[in-house]
Amino acid sequence: MTSQIFSPDVQQTLDLIGIFVFALSGGLLAVRKNMDIFGICVLAEATALGGGVMRDLLIGATPPAAFTNLGYFLTPLVAGIVVFFLHPEVERINRTVQTLDALGLGLFCVTGTVKAHDHGLGAVASVALGMLTAAGGGVIRDVLAMETPSLLRWDREVYAVPALVGSTLVTVLIAIGHLTTVTASSAAMIAFVLRMLALKYGWRAPRAWHRKSTRAGED
Amino acid sequence: MTSQIFSPDVQQTLDLIGIFVFALSGGLLAVRKNMDIFGICVLAEATALGGGVMRDLLIGATPPAAFTNLGYFLTPLVAGIVVFFLHPEVERINRTVQTLDALGLGLFCVTGTVKAHDHGLGAVASVALGMLTAAGGGVIRDVLAMETPSLLRWDREVYAVPALVGSTLVTVLIAIGHLTTVTASSAAMIAFVLRMLALKYGWRAPRAWHRKSTRAGED
Amino acid sequence: MTSQIFSPDVQQTLDLIGIFVFALSGGLLAVRKNMDIFGICVLAEATALGGGVMRDLLIGATPPAAFTNLGYFLTPLVAGIVVFFLHPEVERINRTVQTLDALGLGLFCVTGTVKAHDHGLGAVASVALGMLTAAGGGVIRDVLAMETPSLLRWDREVYAVPALVGSTLVTVLIAIGHLTTVTASSAAMIAFVLRMLALKYGWRAPRAWHRKSTRAGED
Repeated sequence: MTSQIFSPDVQQTLDLIGIFVFALSGGLLAVRKNMDIFGICVLAEATALGGGVMRDLLIGATPPAAFTNLGYFLTPLVAGIVVFFLHPEVERINRTVQTLDALGLGLFCVTGTVKAHDHGLGAVASVALGMLTAAGGGVIRDVLAMETPSLLRWDREVYAVPALVGSTLVTVLIAIGHLTTVTASSAAMIAFVLRMLALKYGWRAPRAWHRKSTRAGED
Repeated sequence: MTSQIFSPDVQQTLDLIGIFVFALSGGLLAVRKNMDIFGICVLAEATALGGGVMRDLLIGATPPAAFTNLGYFLTPLVAGIVVFFLHPEVERINRTVQTLDALGLGLFCVTGTVKAHDHGLGAVASVALGMLTAAGGGVIRDVLAMETPSLLRWDREVYAVPALVGSTLVTVLIAIGHLTTVTASSAAMIAFVLRMLALKYGWRAPRAWHRKSTRAGED
Repeated sequence: MTSQIFSPDVQQTLDLIGIFVFALSGGLLAVRKNMDIFGICVLAEATALGGGVMRDLLIGATPPAAFTNLGYFLTPLVAGIVVFFLHPEVERINRTVQTLDALGLGLFCVTGTVKAHDHGLGAVASVALGMLTAAGGGVIRDVLAMETPSLLRWDREVYAVPALVGSTLVTVLIAIGHLTTVTASSAAMIAFVLRMLALKYGWRAPRAWHRKSTRAGED
């Protein structure tokens, strides 16, 4: 059992911060889509918890943590209500939200990978589930709001690559027996920094070779 | 084990009525989207059983009841075939369909909450899963038909609030040890009446504060 | 335990061919949607493995085979990279891809049905899960790419009917105790041939009766 890389209190606090910020991004998209208070809260819940719920279903850890830890469930509701009343203010601190979202990305790819490994999954599957934990909620958010998932779009800064790097580092650390609070935190920080650099410098992943025009084929 | 709030025969009959009506709504959307007979049946199945299947996956009750109870599976097929041949007639009795749909909403939020509680989930999670049972199938229906889920749209009468009230009442009844056939039926009836009132008076949930125009941001 | 209808090596080889071709169709849609290399690989993975993963979740076989068999997981990545570099060439051999896709359809409806039966599901549920195994990945592919699932569209050649026939044949073979490598292969071949005939002759399923115009109601 390697999952206690942080003390329970620290883990819980970090989780709740990540969940809160992911939920903000769900709530803000709901506001932009002109949804009502209920749509805002549903999208906040789905964005914040969707990745972890899918991971838990896939590893057979039912009921998912989102349904057994009351804090996990209530935090997105709080974020939804904050967005409902204060969405112009939340939009205005967009840079702060993006920074916290990148922190959530780093944290969840690490904890998701560790949890998958703890449930007996292999290295590659654990990396995939770490990425799913970090990025899956955003995909559910976009599908529910009828948007092409930003994860898949070429015109968005890379999101999956930082998660891939973080998850891979954790898997290597587990394999060589050096997963500690310090090394796990470092892996999360590296994913976080990569995401921030991607945002700052507009890093994008390449599209298929030999496309004649830049927009052709886009819907 | 509190799940036997109705006698098995009564429970099965009520379930099948609810499943049939939910399936009609899926089939009718498929017709409006110009889908073929197969699309009609798939959307009927997904709408009628999707909420319960997601609940069963989340509480770890696999295979879901929809795959072990033949009546649950065949009823949506019958509804799909009815819609295929008689969709103008079914559209014409829309008020009857909406009334039966509201009955299904009331029934499924109650039985979903009870089943979640029976599987050891806490009060808040049981309420959430009761709502998911009642409203989840409609979300899957809309996503498969490429529509913004009507559950999330501000311009539709509230659907989640009646389910929330019904599920919460059941959870309180369980907590105080008074869940009986009569009280559970009452909770379902209250959810049903709330939904009917919402339809009659056009109750809608508020959107985020300070929106300048009524349609801006809507896709 | 009837699942060993093929020798493990033959089964694995057939599975990987089917997965590879399903992944190609996911990758090609991603290219048409102008997604980046990461979107191509995600759509390749989701298309190739989505049906089997949903089946495994529903029958309670967690973690799904896609996460325990490294070949299953890596094959779609290879297909994604092939599409990334060679998509014009892959598009050009579209007839070959469609033929292999039909083979995958035949194979997966058979193996999916057998696996569901092995996990104790009844005849009807096993047929449904066989169809889900064969067609579910394509639905996830289309939803992620914001397309109406081609499975549900009237203007696409029938895809579900061949799977339905194949799955039903397998269920009958199991019921009468004659499921062998030869009979299972025959069921898969019949599904394959039906799909090829549907493509060749443009077989489409009927839409709801009495539609006045051919395009009305389509979005």
